[in-house]
Amino acid sequence: MADLTYELTDTLKGYGLSDEYAGACGRVISESTCDGVVSHGIARFPWLIQHIKSEKIDISTAPACVSDNGARQQWDGGHGLGIINALTCTKKAVELAHANGLSLVALRNTTHWLRGGTYGWLAADMDCALIAWTNTTPNMPPWGLSEPLIGNNPLVIAIPRSGGHFVLDMAMSQYSYGKLNEYARSNSKMPTVAGYDIHGQMTDDPQQVLDAGRPIPSGFWKGSGLSIVLDLLAAGLSDGSVTAQIDKDELNVSQIFFAISLSGTYKSHIDELSEALLYNTEDTENKHIRYPGQQVLKRRIYNMEHGVPVPADLWEQVKAL
Amino acid sequence: MADLTYELTDTLKGYGLSDEYAGACGRVISESTCDGVVSHGIARFPWLIQHIKSEKIDISTAPACVSDNGARQQWDGGHGLGIINALTCTKKAVELAHANGLSLVALRNTTHWLRGGTYGWLAADMDCALIAWTNTTPNMPPWGLSEPLIGNNPLVIAIPRSGGHFVLDMAMSQYSYGKLNEYARSNSKMPTVAGYDIHGQMTDDPQQVLDAGRPIPSGFWKGSGLSIVLDLLAAGLSDGSVTAQIDKDELNVSQIFFAISLSGTYKSHIDELSEALLYNTEDTENKHIRYPGQQVLKRRIYNMEHGVPVPADLWEQVKAL
Repeated sequence: MADLTYELTDTLKGYGLSDEYAGACGRVISESTCDGVVSHGIARFPWLIQHIKSEKIDISTAPACVSDNGARQQWDGGHGLGIINALTCTKKAVELAHANGLSLVALRNTTHWLRGGTYGWLAADMDCALIAWTNTTPNMPPWGLSEPLIGNNPLVIAIPRSGGHFVLDMAMSQYSYGKLNEYARSNSKMPTVAGYDIHGQMTDDPQQVLDAGRPIPSGFWKGSGLSIVLDLLAAGLSDGSVTAQIDKDELNVSQIFFAISLSGTYKSHIDELSEALLYNTEDTENKHIRYPGQQVLKRRIYNMEHGVPVPADLWEQVKAL
Repeated sequence: MADLTYELTDTLKGYGLSDEYAGACGRVISESTCDGVVSHGIARFPWLIQHIKSEKIDISTAPACVSDNGARQQWDGGHGLGIINALTCTKKAVELAHANGLSLVALRNTTHWLRGGTYGWLAADMDCALIAWTNTTPNMPPWGLSEPLIGNNPLVIAIPRSGGHFVLDMAMSQYSYGKLNEYARSNSKMPTVAGYDIHGQMTDDPQQVLDAGRPIPSGFWKGSGLSIVLDLLAAGLSDGSVTAQIDKDELNVSQIFFAISLSGTYKSHIDELSEALLYNTEDTENKHIRYPGQQVLKRRIYNMEHGVPVPADLWEQVKAL
């Protein structure tokens, strides 16, 4: 894990990032990879470097608060590093939530935050629940149409808990592009229908879905509707752009960070409730309910001990950068 | 519509509700029916009367604020009328949001709110976005297990807009129990796979899903995960009960009302953004994106003019109460 963080950080420094920015980005990408979310970790690193090289992402800017209304703030990301912007807004939302009970930080003009879960785990570590989401470039057809006109707008909901945080991290498509790419790389079919091919036929072949740019919304009309309201809220609250106004490089996405303080007696209450929730079955040995975040934590602990597995081709690509 | 409201209100008064409570409940159920959401409108009326008669729902109690932390409050519903409790908390959340930018009202020990969308439309009419949800009795199997151990926990996201509010109202199951009952009554199959039969086979037969009590989560593992985090947040923030602790009459559910003020310049900005969002296509005549709430508004306008259609058997049932 330390080797991976060092390699990524060092590469980022080589492309001109400050020690602070390079360290933070290297750590976040390394942690996502360690957590098993390779698709939104190291697999996104070549993309990041490419956009830094082309100066589409401004590595020198810092996010700025542009409107301060107590527990509710608007920030402008200045087309800077998405990870830095999202980390800053998460920390700000947590700070405001502890002071006010709850807070809402709306961020505009930011770039890809890589793994949404990063910010959920961070807020939960600081005793806050976090509801956060981002919009994206048009990459999913709305229910009933064939063109990709809406975003898959990933949503994160995190709740701090002593026995392991609950962290839901889900795109509005049944499968994220990261996940489709991961399966396509290994020539595997998806576990369920994943989208449409170029002829409009439903398919579980990730490459055909990627070629057509037509992943299916999660829950059909439900994921489609959820994507639309999350998009409008993100852009509306940040005075930013909706999916329709975001180009394929995703340099001006809008994000929401809604934090709720759960310090004090809330913590023990949440711990008790989560026990009741997860072990509501007679056969607790074999049939307890799996919760969002459970697998990630398991993999993190394992990989911290045994080393972080990185696909060989990706590692070669990263070393060459 | 006036006749329907009068009939429902009058019946409720006959069962001892105050003029104020009977009027509010009669109006809400009538409006839901007018909006075409029969399943969560008049179809739920016999259930409501039954629980009032058995005194499981306390018709004389008023919801009470039990913890006041500025923009964040906890309320106790006292096992009273779910509609009255949810209306009260929505209005309180809106009031607090206009004063503080945003607000969070968490309600415990409340009963079925009938249609979640009711509260979204109300908040949007008062220039607030609303994110609200309820937990339920265990009525859906978590992904990977066969017993119904989690709730379908309906979620509402409303955004005010001049051309018609965006109001998403979705259960975490692919189909709500109300919708399954509606199709079962007319002996129709569901449009897609709806759940499992008693043998654990996937089926689109609503009656078989109802008999087994096994609707499928929307988006499979995604709806399952979302249900779990919404449950824990609702109970945790309200000091209330999680799904596992809620009996089949749903007399102690937990609900969240998170409101965001969108008055002033936000309104015109949201209107502009929603145009960009919905008409992001070359063929705007025939292919614009359908948004959540669009069909409801259309049906409301039509039914207000032509009269509210009520299934004959339901109407007979209601008249006999």
